[in-house]
Amino acid sequence: MATIVLYSINRTAQTTVRQCFIRYSKGASRVDSHLTVFHKTSVRRLTSLPRVRWVPKATGVRFMSLGTAGRTAPGRTRTGAVLVAGAAAAVAGFVASASHFQRAEMASVIPKAEEEDTEIADKCKTFMSPPCTDVKVLQQRKEEMCTRMEMLIMETQAEFCRALEEVDGGKFKVDRWERKEGGGGISCVLQDGKVFEKAGVNVSVVFGNLTEEAAKQMRSRGKVLKGKDGKLPFCAMGVSSVIHPTNPHIPTVHFNYRYFEIEEEDGTKQWWFGGGTDLTPTYVNKEDGAHFHNSLKEACDKHHPQYYPDFKKWCDRYFYIRHRGETRGIGGIFFDDLDSPSQEEAFSFVKSCAHTVVPCYLPIVQKHLNDPFSPEEKDWQQVRRGRYVEFNLVYDRGVKFGLATPGSRIESILMSLPLTAKWEYMHEPPKGTQEADMLEVLRNPKEWV
Amino acid sequence: MATIVLYSINRTAQTTVRQCFIRYSKGASRVDSHLTVFHKTSVRRLTSLPRVRWVPKATGVRFMSLGTAGRTAPGRTRTGAVLVAGAAAAVAGFVASASHFQRAEMASVIPKAEEEDTEIADKCKTFMSPPCTDVKVLQQRKEEMCTRMEMLIMETQAEFCRALEEVDGGKFKVDRWERKEGGGGISCVLQDGKVFEKAGVNVSVVFGNLTEEAAKQMRSRGKVLKGKDGKLPFCAMGVSSVIHPTNPHIPTVHFNYRYFEIEEEDGTKQWWFGGGTDLTPTYVNKEDGAHFHNSLKEACDKHHPQYYPDFKKWCDRYFYIRHRGETRGIGGIFFDDLDSPSQEEAFSFVKSCAHTVVPCYLPIVQKHLNDPFSPEEKDWQQVRRGRYVEFNLVYDRGVKFGLATPGSRIESILMSLPLTAKWEYMHEPPKGTQEADMLEVLRNPKEWV
Repeated sequence: MATIVLYSINRTAQTTVRQCFIRYSKGASRVDSHLTVFHKTSVRRLTSLPRVRWVPKATGVRFMSLGTAGRTAPGRTRTGAVLVAGAAAAVAGFVASASHFQRAEMASVIPKAEEEDTEIADKCKTFMSPPCTDVKVLQQRKEEMCTRMEMLIMETQAEFCRALEEVDGGKFKVDRWERKEGGGGISCVLQDGKVFEKAGVNVSVVFGNLTEEAAKQMRSRGKVLKGKDGKLPFCAMGVSSVIHPTNPHIPTVHFNYRYFEIEEEDGTKQWWFGGGTDLTPTYVNKEDGAHFHNSLKEACDKHHPQYYPDFKKWCDRYFYIRHRGETRGIGGIFFDDLDSPSQEEAFSFVKSCAHTVVPCYLPIVQKHLNDPFSPEEKDWQQVRRGRYVEFNLVYDRGVKFGLATPGSRIESILMSLPLTAKWEYMHEPPKGTQEADMLEVLRNPKEWV
Repeated sequence: MATIVLYSINRTAQTTVRQCFIRYSKGASRVDSHLTVFHKTSVRRLTSLPRVRWVPKATGVRFMSLGTAGRTAPGRTRTGAVLVAGAAAAVAGFVASASHFQRAEMASVIPKAEEEDTEIADKCKTFMSPPCTDVKVLQQRKEEMCTRMEMLIMETQAEFCRALEEVDGGKFKVDRWERKEGGGGISCVLQDGKVFEKAGVNVSVVFGNLTEEAAKQMRSRGKVLKGKDGKLPFCAMGVSSVIHPTNPHIPTVHFNYRYFEIEEEDGTKQWWFGGGTDLTPTYVNKEDGAHFHNSLKEACDKHHPQYYPDFKKWCDRYFYIRHRGETRGIGGIFFDDLDSPSQEEAFSFVKSCAHTVVPCYLPIVQKHLNDPFSPEEKDWQQVRRGRYVEFNLVYDRGVKFGLATPGSRIESILMSLPLTAKWEYMHEPPKGTQEADMLEVLRNPKEWV
């Protein structure tokens, strides 16, 4: 299998930032005038969890390890990562090539603006589809939060899809859609795969005016918003994903990272971030739970010591199926209305969370890839999926917001529903069974860290 | 197979009403001191659709045909029905026995009150379970609408369950449950039957105070209700049922008949009836649609010429999956807030509707009982069931009301969900297929009568 390493350089007005895109492709590799393409099968062995990572400025270009152990706090450079997994030779070649590019950049006479444009355009080529917003518009508004967030969600989608394709062997179907009222999205779905019964990774960037019904959904989040003639111009974007594996021993994962901007009557802009990542296993596995929560805690701790404990609790509260008296899964983190301490810092936190999705989940998938399972275990998974459907259709604010927003793409919103689900009347697993253990955890959320 | 005919006589203060209960039991027959039990296999052939019918006072007791052709307008006696299906001998025996009881009644010296009590008690013995309200309370308040409606919903449940058991060969599991806050219910479920994948027939009689959330659900029905300190004492009762057959050529049916009483701040009682019966086929079948709608129209026309056209439209509007732009099924009738022309007449209409459930649906079941079906047809049924789940969890007011009412029995509320359902991403049947024909009807509701 060919491994493609894409590399580009960017210098903004304030800081110099270098970016590495590491992508894995099953078939042909792409060569582009703006991209350097490496064919190194050894790179794949270097990291079992392919990632897209932002690398802060430092001397030379560093290869970033992508497991949770190799995470780097923002603003600091991780040294020594080149030695990860004993693949020094491959990485050495990569660094050498990168250095060559760095020199080429320093010697170039390309004007700054053009160079920056090239960087956005290059990034866009690594996505599952061109971004929702026209590349030229993104280039013109590259410093705006809307642009930066759109780039992040597109990257996150690509990174996660590639990682899932790698493990499944299947390919995501990519649908690009437009919203008549403004905006659109990119839905990536892998259905009936070897590992994943249904995997959806969706990006959407929508704008327009909030309807009264949709505005009510927003208000329920605690934001008091005053519109002009009852209308509120808004822009909302996010990446969201739900993965339903076939094997009942591989848990379902969900994540969503989003950004909202709403213009009030007096012209002031309200903005906030929201998001979270949570796990829904069919059976309790303490090690999986600990790995998942520890990964999230590590991402949170880099930004605020209170983030993990607060957002863990919030997650348990949010993914609660009230009418059943049980949580949807074993949680993770969930936050909303995040508009502090600053837009820059909030974005940085969201970025850390988005970059934690793959290392959170993929090791769990790989661990259980070949676990045997019985028809009874599959049946229990189907019953749990029924509960998943109940939560998503009855309580999930994102789904409610989507269904109430005219012009929403329903197939993308309901992509989160499992391929199959079951409702058995009065299903209650006997005491002492693994199914009863799972219910016990769902009825009394526990600490995993 | 033994056929049990239960018979009892009642004389109220105003009118003398006789009732026939015709029940079918697969196994043992019951003998009770208050009941006459006939073992006549020929009676079964007399009517393919066993029914419980009210027979207005007349000379002697008449056997009522139970098909749509044999329906009798309220207040009039149908003559000649004894000859239905050429089973005159069996019916003659029945009438003779009935006459015997009538004579016994006339000769008796039992005081009136005690006699009436016996009638309620006898009826209750034919139900799937003793009624929700204590029999003595029902006897004390026998003229109140709450009592009369509770008796009707219990009868409807029993009648429908027996008819389904007859065709399936399986037995309903009967669960009696109490609601801590007041009231309770009887849930009858037949799961994994030969004909029915999941069949639920539920009765509930609940009372207490409406919560603010639940009251909001009520207010959305157009009732402006003023509570004392925000609380509204209420009593709600109804029978509801959803039947999901295994064979995709047998449609799903749903019906629900309900009665509400709410006490306002000033002590005035608001009351109203609601209900409806609707069909959700997987494939279009014009004859089935015509039979179903004609049966309902016939029941409606006895009460008001505008009922069928109005309630048919209301049904199409109500069972509309807005986010999909399609109706749930081919409709039927739906009404709510019915509080005119009088309580008596509204109840009479609801009674006609309830008595139409079996003749509406059972002939369709029997017609398709042995239709062959392919895995692809089963798959399409599963996709349609996914839509059924979407409607029930996102839009259905009954479900929303139930989920928001503390102490509700969730298993009974969600009994309406199918055993299995499917969500395929971007499922769209090719043009010209039977699946596409079904979608066309769901997207553009048609007239069936």
